Parts: sequence; C-alpha cells; structure tokens
Amino acid sequence: MAGSPPVGRTSVSAAVNPDRLWHRHLAIARIGATGRGGVNRQALTPEDAEARRQVLAWAAARGFTASVDAIGNLFVRRAGSDPAAAPVVSGSHLDTQPTGGNFDGIFGVLAALEVLDAAEEARIQTRRPLDLVIWTNEEGARFQPTTMGSAVFAGALPLAAALDTLDGRGVSVKAALAEALAAAPVPDRRPFGFPVAAYLEAHIEQGPILEATGMTIGVVTGIQGLRWYRVEVTGEEAHAGTMPLAQRRDALLAAMEMVQGLRELMADPSDTVRFTVGRFEVQPNSPNTVCGRALFTIDFRHPHPQVLARLGDRVEAVCRAHARGCAVEVAETLHSPPTAFSPVVAGLIRAAAERHSLPYADIVSGATHDAKHLAGLCPTGMIFVPCARGISHNEAERASPADLAAGTRVLADVVVELANT
Amino acid sequence: MAGSPPVGRTSVSAAVNPDRLWHRHLAIARIGATGRGGVNRQALTPEDAEARRQVLAWAAARGFTASVDAIGNLFVRRAGSDPAAAPVVSGSHLDTQPTGGNFDGIFGVLAALEVLDAAEEARIQTRRPLDLVIWTNEEGARFQPTTMGSAVFAGALPLAAALDTLDGRGVSVKAALAEALAAAPVPDRRPFGFPVAAYLEAHIEQGPILEATGMTIGVVTGIQGLRWYRVEVTGEEAHAGTMPLAQRRDALLAAMEMVQGLRELMADPSDTVRFTVGRFEVQPNSPNTVCGRALFTIDFRHPHPQVLARLGDRVEAVCRAHARGCAVEVAETLHSPPTAFSPVVAGLIRAAAERHSLPYADIVSGATHDAKHLAGLCPTGMIFVPCARGISHNEAERASPADLAAGTRVLADVVVELANT
Repeated sequence: MAGSPPVGRTSVSAAVNPDRLWHRHLAIARIGATGRGGVNRQALTPEDAEARRQVLAWAAARGFTASVDAIGNLFVRRAGSDPAAAPVVSGSHLDTQPTGGNFDGIFGVLAALEVLDAAEEARIQTRRPLDLVIWTNEEGARFQPTTMGSAVFAGALPLAAALDTLDGRGVSVKAALAEALAAAPVPDRRPFGFPVAAYLEAHIEQGPILEATGMTIGVVTGIQGLRWYRVEVTGEEAHAGTMPLAQRRDALLAAMEMVQGLRELMADPSDTVRFTVGRFEVQPNSPNTVCGRALFTIDFRHPHPQVLARLGDRVEAVCRAHARGCAVEVAETLHSPPTAFSPVVAGLIRAAAERHSLPYADIVSGATHDAKHLAGLCPTGMIFVPCARGISHNEAERASPADLAAGTRVLADVVVELANT
Repeated sequence: MAGSPPVGRTSVSAAVNPDRLWHRHLAIARIGATGRGGVNRQALTPEDAEARRQVLAWAAARGFTASVDAIGNLFVRRAGSDPAAAPVVSGSHLDTQPTGGNFDGIFGVLAALEVLDAAEEARIQTRRPLDLVIWTNEEGARFQPTTMGSAVFAGALPLAAALDTLDGRGVSVKAALAEALAAAPVPDRRPFGFPVAAYLEAHIEQGPILEATGMTIGVVTGIQGLRWYRVEVTGEEAHAGTMPLAQRRDALLAAMEMVQGLRELMADPSDTVRFTVGRFEVQPNSPNTVCGRALFTIDFRHPHPQVLARLGDRVEAVCRAHARGCAVEVAETLHSPPTAFSPVVAGLIRAAAERHSLPYADIVSGATHDAKHLAGLCPTGMIFVPCARGISHNEAERASPADLAAGTRVLADVVVELANT
C-alpha cells in the first residue's frame, strides 16, 4: 500500500492491540522487578538478557528474523516486498536505571513490536522491511556513557572503547556482552551503520508538559543541547569556633554564591532553560570545620544553540565573580549541540495524530535518546506520550494503557507510511 | 613562698627553660609524624601511648609520681609541703586530629611539665601539690564525643558509656584503653573528681585574634556557647533535562536558600557570631538528576547566652521559611551553654602577663577545651598564645618558641601562686 493509510479495519493502526501491548509491559516489568513497583535491569545483566529473550520469543512466534551487531544491538525484522530496500527502524531500549520504571525505553521497544504484529495481523505488505531495534545500554547506569549501543552503531563511539568500558566491579562490556549473548542467543550478525530509510522512536515524555497541557502525542522536533561543567572551589579549612567569619575562605559559601549567581544568569521567564546543580560535595564535610573544598556540577540545557552558547560561555566568569577569595576551577566536561529531527517525519506524526483525533503538540526532548545518534544517519523522529507528573528514572514512573496505545497507533501509521516510500 | 613571686632568678618563671620546652615539642612531634609537618596521633592508639610514655619518662627522671584514672586520664605529681592539700592541676591533651598539628593540646601538657621542672630547678616548695594532667581523647576524632576524659572525670559523661564507645572499626574505648595502658603502664590509680584547688590550661588560640592584634597572652574569660543543628530537606528527584524549573522541588536549592536565610539571621557587624555550615550532603548526588534530599549541619556559637537563645531559637523558622515546597526537619543535636572561667584566676593571669611586660588581652575561647568540664569543679583558667594565622586542626599549625615560652612563664607564676593558697 502507499500514501496515508485509512483509519479502518485494514489499517495497521486499527490492528494495534492495546491489551497485548499492556500485558507485554507487565511481562517485561516482572524481569528484574524490585518489589517496589520498579525494576533494576541494568545493561547486559542476566535480567537484561532475559528481557531480550522474551522479546525474541514473541518475535519468533511470528516468524520474524533476528540479528545482532557487535555491540549487542538487537534487530528483529518483518520482511518487506523489496529485499534490497533499506528498512524503517523503530525501537528503543530495555535496560533501566538501578531504580528504574516500567516504561522508559520499554514502551519504544514494545510499541515497535506491536507495529510489526499489527502489520502481520492486518496483512499489510510494506515495500521496505520493518526493523525493531533494541539498543544496548541506553541508560549508562552500569557502563558509561549513555546511549552506548546507538553511539557505536552511528560511529560516534569506537567499538573498542565501548567494549573496554568497565562497570563498578571491573567487569568489561566485552565480558558482560558475551554472557548476555550466550543467555539470549541470536545467530545472525549485522554490521554497524547499515542503510536505514528512517528511524522512529516512541517514548514516554519523562517530563510533565504533555500531561499538564492535556496532550496525548508529543511531536518531538529535536533534542535540546547540553553543556556540563565541573566546578572545584578551594578555600581554607578552619576551626568553626575560632575563626571569625570575616577572615574565612569558606569554599561551601563560595560555591553557594556561585550557584546563586548562575541561577540569576540562567533565569528564564519562559522556563525553557534547564539548569541543574545535581552533584555537590564538600570537604572535610565536618560540622565544626569550615569547608576547605567544594565540588559541584552544572547541567545546562536549551533547544537553541545560540542560547546554549551565550549563557554557557558565561558560566566560568560568573563562578569566578563569586569566588570570595577562594580558588576556582571550571571545566566544561560535555558539550552536546541540539539535535533537529526530520521535519518530514514530524509532519507525518502530526498528520497521524490528527487522523486519530489525538491532541498533539510539538515538543523538544529534554532528555537524550538513542534517536540522537540516528538523526545523523537518516530521517528521524520521536513520538512522546505522557507520563504521570513527569516522573521518570524512578520506580514510581507511570503511563496509562490508553496513552501507550495511542502513541503506538501513531507510530504504526508513520512507520508503515515510511516503509512504502 | 606566698604572694606574687618576683621576676628574678629564684622565681619559677625565671627557671622556665624555653629551649627544653621547644625540644620537647619537637620530640613529641616525631611520634605519629605524617611526613608533611603534622601528626596523626589519635586517642588511645600506639602513638598516643608512646607520647604518654615519653612524658612519663621525663617525669620519672625528676622523680615525679604518676597515676591514672579509669578513663586513662594521666596525672604526674610534684609533691607539695601539705600532703592533705588539694593539688593545683594543669595540663591538656596529647591526642590529635588525623591531620593534626604539633601544638594543639601538646603545648598545654609540655607547659605544665615545664612548670614542674622549673619549680624543681628553682627549688620552690609549694604548699599544694602541682599536678600535670594528660586528658584522654580530647579531640574526639577516633572516639566521640570530644573532651571524653575530662567529661568522665567531672561526671558529665558516665564511665560505662565512654568505655563502650566504638571507633570506626568497631574497637571500643575499653579495649583501646587497655592496650594503651599496657604500652605505657602507670601502677597507681586515681579516683574521678578528686578535690582540685584550681585548674589551669595553656593552649594555642586556634584562632587569629591574638596574632592580628599583636597580643602574646590571651586571658581566657570563658568558652562561648554552642548550638548544633541538623537540617534534612526532602524534595523530589527529577530528570534534569525534562523537568521545568518551576515544577521542581529541588532539595539542594532549598537547602542553599535556607543557608542564605540563616546567614542573614546571623549577620553580625561585630563578627562575634560564629556560624558554620560544615557538613552538606545531597542525594542522589548525580549531575543529571534534580536533588531529592539534602542534609546539612549548623554550628552556631556565641559568648552570650541571650544571643545564643535569640538567634538559635529562630533557626528552625528560618529554614521552614525557605523550604520552597520541600519537607524540612530541623533537629537541635547539641546545646552547650557558655562557660565562665574564674575571674580570680583571670586576674592572676593578667597580673603575671603585666609583670612579664607581655601584651595581653581578654579573649573568649571559640573552641571547647577540657577546661570546660573543670570549670564546674574548681576555679579554672586558660592562657592562650598566638598561632600562625589562626590555623589549627591542620598540619600547618604553627606557634613560635618565644610565645610558647611566654605563655609557660605566665602559667608557672599563676600555678605556683595558686599552689600557695
């Protein structure tokens, strides 16, 4: 079929099965369940392998074929009519934070699987293959960096560097991957960076905007840019009882004044700037000793490169202006420019949401995703659905079955449409 | 002899030997030396026992007698003419912080020993015995609380509680004390709280005031009061990239605003208030997660009980006023009222400094000392000498031989004068 699929019995989205989709979420949620509603299913653990085995079993029941690349990215294919055509790829990840939720990543994988199943049940023959992908180690909780699998796939991270990465116990990605592949075997091998016609990723928003504005579908236009800084402040330890305040060089107070100065720099009535001091450590961290050393991190994000440059370039000067006689070192540890997704794909998402009468709005992703790496390779888009109060990376992460189904219907329409281009 | 001793060949202060005093400091500094100029000689360690053994050897060479009480406080006696008279006691401690200096405590012990030696060499017969004391575990670095030995001596801390205290490795005071006493044996036993005619403690100031004002002798009129608080702030963890700032409950920012509010509360043009936030911890302490929980401590000191009450009683309200939607718990963990030393003893210190033409000034101790516990038992005083830039609890702690000798001369005069009352 070609062109916009009608919303009817024979469309792929009409064949999306909300009940199956939800029960698959529940099944995956049992793997690594913490007993407090969340999961601990970190990358390349036995739990991660078991979740992959479950998806492989669902795929095998349909006769879909599976393959894996050298960093463990797992692909499940529903064949197209043209074996030479590049696939439309859709997916996300199954690994979680140590106290993770049941939707971050999982939804994108299960939605993509549902699209393949729905296409099968609706007997829709696409020209291009439909590939489901499960990226390795998106979270970066056990092995840094985040989005490891998609970064290696896209050539942004050398395979050897990724394989040599160690977890906190000294286990390498290489060793953990060998174990995970042995536990969830996939015979076929896939190269990195094979031609992809388009990449789609469905995901919970991980923020509160869709819920607060009553939207069901977030048409993700891109991923905001990110700059990270590490600030070290060195003052002088002194006795809390004896040293007059005027003679102190208190690294903690200096760091606090720096943060206050940065808050003023980053003040934004539109609430678009994301400015976070998440790590903050002091030494000697003793109640009766004036702090001699403080360390803090800055996580600054914005969708617009010029704002990222203008404010980010002033971070060091603001810190220095509030040093209170302390020494200060500011290092920029990460600079990730904004990513723009394909306007064509975004247009297809909007049109599909429109056809399904779903309230939708454009949104910039605050979090990074595997889609960031794919955006340099092919037309890429993301579909967000709401999550309760924006809570994510948290065992309390929640999304409604109806929203997950709605997002999957939009994904199905867009994937099938692109697979016929 | 009675009355003020003349400053001449036969006075005790004239017999003070600055060279011996200084070389004894150097000898003690070798025990537990870190190689960076400081010492690590924590309470009841083999190093602490070795330092005591050295003092016992110097005392034995003079024929002074030694005794020890059940918490390990060590007494060295030069007999008086009246065996029934209560002694004048002077001393301090030999234990140090993990990165401690060579004068904090040590000076008070060696100055007291020098007084006994000088009295011996000047052939001065006092009516009362002169007792040197080495208090156990003043620093509280290995075993909490600080001033443990003098607290038990004065009845402020039950012996059983002190003996059951464990260090970070699970070793009890009881076990460590048995080892230390075996390594530095003292056969004679002494009861707690025996009658003391007066207590004198010489000490480095541990603050910058004497040096800054050109004074050699600080006439310590008392120890300022102290209130400690522990503040726990609970917000909500959120994704740094997705959660708009207006919707966050950032425990780190709330804690910082509380500290700023407290700084405004504690603002004091006279720079008498001591206000310190020394411990500050956040969770999850991750660069890209909004802080969900912050904990900090407040160390607030002032010489005047009414200021201690007025400002201290407002701490909780100020914290609550800056909670930014977070939950806050404020607990007062310590409330130590100001200690006033004996005006009579202070008068004798002033007079002695005057006779020696030493610049002196009244001063309130910012730090706590063993003298705090003695002040409830007997007329008590302290003599401060300057230390470089006020640096203490630090391997860079420094005091000049001339200032140490000057403080010891004043101590000698006052001790001998009180020993003839």
